[in-house]
Amino acid sequence: MSADGVIRVGVLGFGGLGQAAARILEPKTQMKWIAVADRKGYAYNEAGLDGDACIATVRDRGSVGYVDPYGTLSNNSLQELLEKANADGYFLALPNLPNTFMADVARMFIHSGWRGVLVDALKRTSAVEQLLQLQYQLQAAGITYMTGCGATPGLLTAAAALAAQSYAEIHSVKITFGVGIANWEVYKATIREDIAHLPGYDVDKASQMSDLQVEALLDKTNGILALEGMEHADDIILELVGICDRDRVTVGGVVDTRNPKKPLSTNVKVTGRTFEGKISTHTFTLGDETSMAANVCGPAFGYLKAGKTLHRRGIYGLFSCAEIMPQFVS
Amino acid sequence: MSADGVIRVGVLGFGGLGQAAARILEPKTQMKWIAVADRKGYAYNEAGLDGDACIATVRDRGSVGYVDPYGTLSNNSLQELLEKANADGYFLALPNLPNTFMADVARMFIHSGWRGVLVDALKRTSAVEQLLQLQYQLQAAGITYMTGCGATPGLLTAAAALAAQSYAEIHSVKITFGVGIANWEVYKATIREDIAHLPGYDVDKASQMSDLQVEALLDKTNGILALEGMEHADDIILELVGICDRDRVTVGGVVDTRNPKKPLSTNVKVTGRTFEGKISTHTFTLGDETSMAANVCGPAFGYLKAGKTLHRRGIYGLFSCAEIMPQFVS
Repeated sequence: MSADGVIRVGVLGFGGLGQAAARILEPKTQMKWIAVADRKGYAYNEAGLDGDACIATVRDRGSVGYVDPYGTLSNNSLQELLEKANADGYFLALPNLPNTFMADVARMFIHSGWRGVLVDALKRTSAVEQLLQLQYQLQAAGITYMTGCGATPGLLTAAAALAAQSYAEIHSVKITFGVGIANWEVYKATIREDIAHLPGYDVDKASQMSDLQVEALLDKTNGILALEGMEHADDIILELVGICDRDRVTVGGVVDTRNPKKPLSTNVKVTGRTFEGKISTHTFTLGDETSMAANVCGPAFGYLKAGKTLHRRGIYGLFSCAEIMPQFVS
Repeated sequence: MSADGVIRVGVLGFGGLGQAAARILEPKTQMKWIAVADRKGYAYNEAGLDGDACIATVRDRGSVGYVDPYGTLSNNSLQELLEKANADGYFLALPNLPNTFMADVARMFIHSGWRGVLVDALKRTSAVEQLLQLQYQLQAAGITYMTGCGATPGLLTAAAALAAQSYAEIHSVKITFGVGIANWEVYKATIREDIAHLPGYDVDKASQMSDLQVEALLDKTNGILALEGMEHADDIILELVGICDRDRVTVGGVVDTRNPKKPLSTNVKVTGRTFEGKISTHTFTLGDETSMAANVCGPAFGYLKAGKTLHRRGIYGLFSCAEIMPQFVS
C-alpha cells in the first residue's frame, strides 16, 4: 500500500474484463490502477495508467505494450511486469483457457518472491482444484490469494453462503444466469469458455475454434447459448466451506450474444430445511441492467480490498468468495 | 475451544430467541450448548445442556435457574455464570430494552477478564453507537465482538453489502420484513421493541406496557403492527463499511402477531449506479417458510463461528455482519 493508503492495483489480461476493470478503477480513490499486461506486452506507471488511452491502444494496435510512454512489448509480459511494478495486488482477468493457466500464473507469483494479494474470477471447478494444491506454497510465499471472486463463482456463491445461514441443512443451490452482450467479439475468451460447456464440446475443442467457426455456431443458435449442468467452481467452493456436497450445486444459464438485454434475470436459489423442519428457498436476484462486467469486476475489487486487510494482518494462503466478505471500494 | 475442536457456546437470555438458539444448537456437531442465563438464574453443564428440559423448566417454573441438576437461582445470573462457565463464545439473545443493555453486558464481559467471542442480534442504531465506544476496550480485553448478526441487521445487511459490489455508487438500501407469529406472548420482548417504533411510542413507553396493554393495542390493529422508517442498525453498519450514508438505508415491515404466515416476503433491495452509468436493483428475498428464529439464530451462530476463527488468529475488537462472512455450522 502506498503511503496515502491507496491500494496499487495491477490487472493481468486486457480483454473485455480487463478493460472493464480499468474503467471501474478510474473513479476510485481507495485504489489506483498502475499496471497491466496482455500476451504481447505490458504497461506500468506508478502514478496511474489512463484507461481510455490503454483501451484505444489495444483496439488500434493489439497490445498494451504499445501504450505511449509506459508500454513495453514482451513475450514474457507477466513476469517482466511483475519484476518492475510495485503493485499491492493483481486482478487476474486472464482467460480461463487453458484450464491450467490460473495455477501456472499463481506458480509464477510464488516463485517471483512478490508478496501481495491475488484475485481471480475463474470459472471451473478443476481450476480451483489445481489452486488448492498450491495452498501451502501461497501461504509460505506471503501471498493472499482470493479465488472465484467474480459473479459466479463470486457474488452469487457468496450470496448462497449467506442464504445458507437460515437453514440446518442445504438441499440445493441453483444458480441460473442470464447474460446479454451486444457483440460476442468483445468477450471472445469468455464466449469460447461458454461454448466449451455445450454438449459435444470441451475446453480444447472450444479454444481451438476460429472466430469464423464461433460465428457459424452462433448463427445456428440465433446467437443464443443455452448452458446446463456447467462445470462451475461454485460447487467446490460451497463444499469447501461445509455448506453442502458439490453435487447439490448446479449452474446453468442462457447467454444471448446478440442483445445486451439479459434473456433472464440472473439468480441463485438456496433451498434447505430449517431447524423447525420447514423446507424453504431464499433467492438472490441481480438487477437486469447490471452487466457481466459490473457483476464480475465489482466483486473482484471488493475481494481484493478484503484480501489486502487479511494480508496486512499477516494472513496468507488461499481463500474463496464464500469465506471472506468483500469490502466496498470507494 | 475444547480439545475435540467443538466450540462451547453459552446463550444469554432464554425467551423466544434463546429457546430457538438451544434447539438450533442441539443437532450441531461443531458447537455444544453448555451454558444459559436468564434474569433469575443460570444453568451450566460442560457436557452440554438439554434444550427440551430447559425449555420445559422455564415454561413451568419461570427460570433456567430451576433446571435440575445444573441450574442455580441468582439475582446476578450473567456475572455468576460467566465466572463458572468455560464457554468459547456467547450469543446475547437478550432483550434490546433498555437500549443500554447490550453495551452494559459488553462492559461486564470486558471487566470480567473473560476472553472469547460475543455475538448479538441487536436492532437499534443507538445500541451499535454505544458499542462503538467500547471498540478499543473490547480489543484490549481479547474479545471478538460481532454486532448486528441476526436477520436485520444481520443476514439482510450482509446481503446488501454483497449486492453493493456490483455498483460504483449506492442510492438506496431498502429492507422490508414480514413476520408472522402465531402468538405474541412467545416473543414478548421483541413485540415490545416493535411497538416502540410505532408513532406515539418510544422505548420507555413500550417497555413499561403491561401484557394487557399490549393485548389491547393488538386488538385495535387486528394483531398487525405496520412499521416504517424504523431505527435499525442496518444503517450505521452499512455506513461504517463505506457503502452509503445511513440516511439511504430504510427499514420497515409488517408484523402479524396472530398468524404464523408472513404478511409479505422479507427482502432487501439495493439500488445503485454501475460503472457504465446504469441504475439497477439487486434483490435478496427470504423464503416465506423461514421463521424469524431461523433467520436470526442461524446467522448468529454462523457469525459466532467466524468470530472464533478471528479470535484464534488474535483478531479482537468490534466487527459487524457486513464485514465478516458468517461460517456454516454443521
